[in-house]
Amino acid sequence: MPKTFRRIVMASRPRGPVTAENFRMETVDMRPLDDGEVLVRNHYLSLDPYMRGRMSSAKSYAASQQLDHTMIGGTVGQVVASRNDYFKVGEFVGGMLGWAEMGVSDGVLLRKLDTTRIPLSAYLGVVGMPGMAAWYGFNQILEAAAGDTVVVSAASGAVGSVVGQLARLRGCRVVGIAGGAEKCEYVVKQLGFDACVDHKAGNLEADLAAATPEGVDAIFENVGGACLDAALARTNAYARVALCGLIAGFDGKELPIKHSRLLLLNRLTLRGFIVTEHMEFWQQGLQELAALVASHQIKYRETVAEGLAAAPQAFMGLLQGHNFGKQLVKLIS
Amino acid sequence: MPKTFRRIVMASRPRGPVTAENFRMETVDMRPLDDGEVLVRNHYLSLDPYMRGRMSSAKSYAASQQLDHTMIGGTVGQVVASRNDYFKVGEFVGGMLGWAEMGVSDGVLLRKLDTTRIPLSAYLGVVGMPGMAAWYGFNQILEAAAGDTVVVSAASGAVGSVVGQLARLRGCRVVGIAGGAEKCEYVVKQLGFDACVDHKAGNLEADLAAATPEGVDAIFENVGGACLDAALARTNAYARVALCGLIAGFDGKELPIKHSRLLLLNRLTLRGFIVTEHMEFWQQGLQELAALVASHQIKYRETVAEGLAAAPQAFMGLLQGHNFGKQLVKLIS
Repeated sequence: MPKTFRRIVMASRPRGPVTAENFRMETVDMRPLDDGEVLVRNHYLSLDPYMRGRMSSAKSYAASQQLDHTMIGGTVGQVVASRNDYFKVGEFVGGMLGWAEMGVSDGVLLRKLDTTRIPLSAYLGVVGMPGMAAWYGFNQILEAAAGDTVVVSAASGAVGSVVGQLARLRGCRVVGIAGGAEKCEYVVKQLGFDACVDHKAGNLEADLAAATPEGVDAIFENVGGACLDAALARTNAYARVALCGLIAGFDGKELPIKHSRLLLLNRLTLRGFIVTEHMEFWQQGLQELAALVASHQIKYRETVAEGLAAAPQAFMGLLQGHNFGKQLVKLIS
Repeated sequence: MPKTFRRIVMASRPRGPVTAENFRMETVDMRPLDDGEVLVRNHYLSLDPYMRGRMSSAKSYAASQQLDHTMIGGTVGQVVASRNDYFKVGEFVGGMLGWAEMGVSDGVLLRKLDTTRIPLSAYLGVVGMPGMAAWYGFNQILEAAAGDTVVVSAASGAVGSVVGQLARLRGCRVVGIAGGAEKCEYVVKQLGFDACVDHKAGNLEADLAAATPEGVDAIFENVGGACLDAALARTNAYARVALCGLIAGFDGKELPIKHSRLLLLNRLTLRGFIVTEHMEFWQQGLQELAALVASHQIKYRETVAEGLAAAPQAFMGLLQGHNFGKQLVKLIS
């Protein structure tokens, strides 16, 4: 048992953009395990856009991150001590232990991970919460059929990349929206999207129109704002919109939907969702995703920051779109 | 057989607000009936907000109104000549004969109306298309349960008044939004809504918040813009939005949805619909509405303009909210 470990707490709530001052690194004492408890050394932390919402005190679907508490977040790691019969030292586990080198769990929210076919880090991405968000929104909301045109924003990201590949496997025409030529090239050449529009190129509406000659039947929205409006402008009748994220709207910016009229004219159905509220699908979804990853039918990419101290900067970069694929923090080498 | 009849055609497309110059009255010759045809004298014309959309050449769900053609619209009247075995002279029928004193139909879109329990004019309102829009959106989209709070905009109108009364019969708390104190008083005292907010009073968001102490579970939207945003601001988790109309957005005004973030945070489902695309529900819906009207469980109100020449002005008034309840034009005295 180590005597101490390091963690990062939220030191203050952001006013506008997140800054380094909103975080504080602390060294805390390890306490002895109680009966039933497990000590886990975190190998990877997950950084996700939803964390920005939690840092605000505004009403949200999730409880606010508390001041001076460990930043919440998904983790994968290895059991280093256990007083729980189900978890053995050395086993790989996923949990919600937050931005910390180690964590103690009563085991309720831990699950064992099989790393024989799937790398440990992928359980925070393509076969974890982001992958499930893609799987749920695509399968339970978009109802896309072969031949439909599907638009996915943040197309190179942890969620969007999976949505697009699921849609390709379904036989849809898939058009991504991503920030920058390099991401767009990756989305088309590596992930197999039919096209990808660079929203930084300055002609989003026109470029998306050119990439969707038969209109748009389904939108998987991770960004909001101009991305969503550009996709709405191309909708066919009865198109569906799965609203998964609005990363453009962090930092308190208003994010009006300009083309509200099209929701009526094109008889659209739009649904916002939070994947953690649909746990009944997780077993099925994660099994399907794991099989697709193991057989290389779904590819993924990671951006890995090194060491706990790098987490705040990596998180700020994620909110700016500096990451390329799933943003992780690696804690052990 | 009369030798001529009068009609109103669209003389030009509106640029911005509709004006009298967009219409032209014409006298046309009556032609002999072909085999299978029916001549109907219109007793009432229906005026409806959707007609504004048709007058525009912009893409819409319905074909554009053609220049120099009779303004399209629902009608009720009486058969005055028939070469169709199914329709007899003297029978009351509903149809889509447009802004005209008379019309010839091949019978396909005519239906016989039973005026023994329901007044003829009601077939253009509470037991016609507006009533069905209310019935469909309320029953097939809002999924409101007893105890839910339902917000209805244009609450005194042909659609909103029916939505609110259906919701009251379901045991919901019903809060209307209407323009002016007189309409609000009617909505509460005559229609039995729990509350009604006057959007002209200048405190829409605050007044609606006060009227919805337990938040909002379902929104039936006829107006859009500030009305929709005020209701979205009060939504509880998993609230539903039936988007039936956006009358605030005619005349080319942008109608942004300001509170787009709430669509995600509160996991809302929003669906735009056009009731004429759901004919499979009409028989059931109209039977239910007719029974409720005949037993006085649903009340309705009409604003009746007199004579064909009054139709353009009445239509412009409708778009400004000058009507009170269903706007009709009465053609025979």
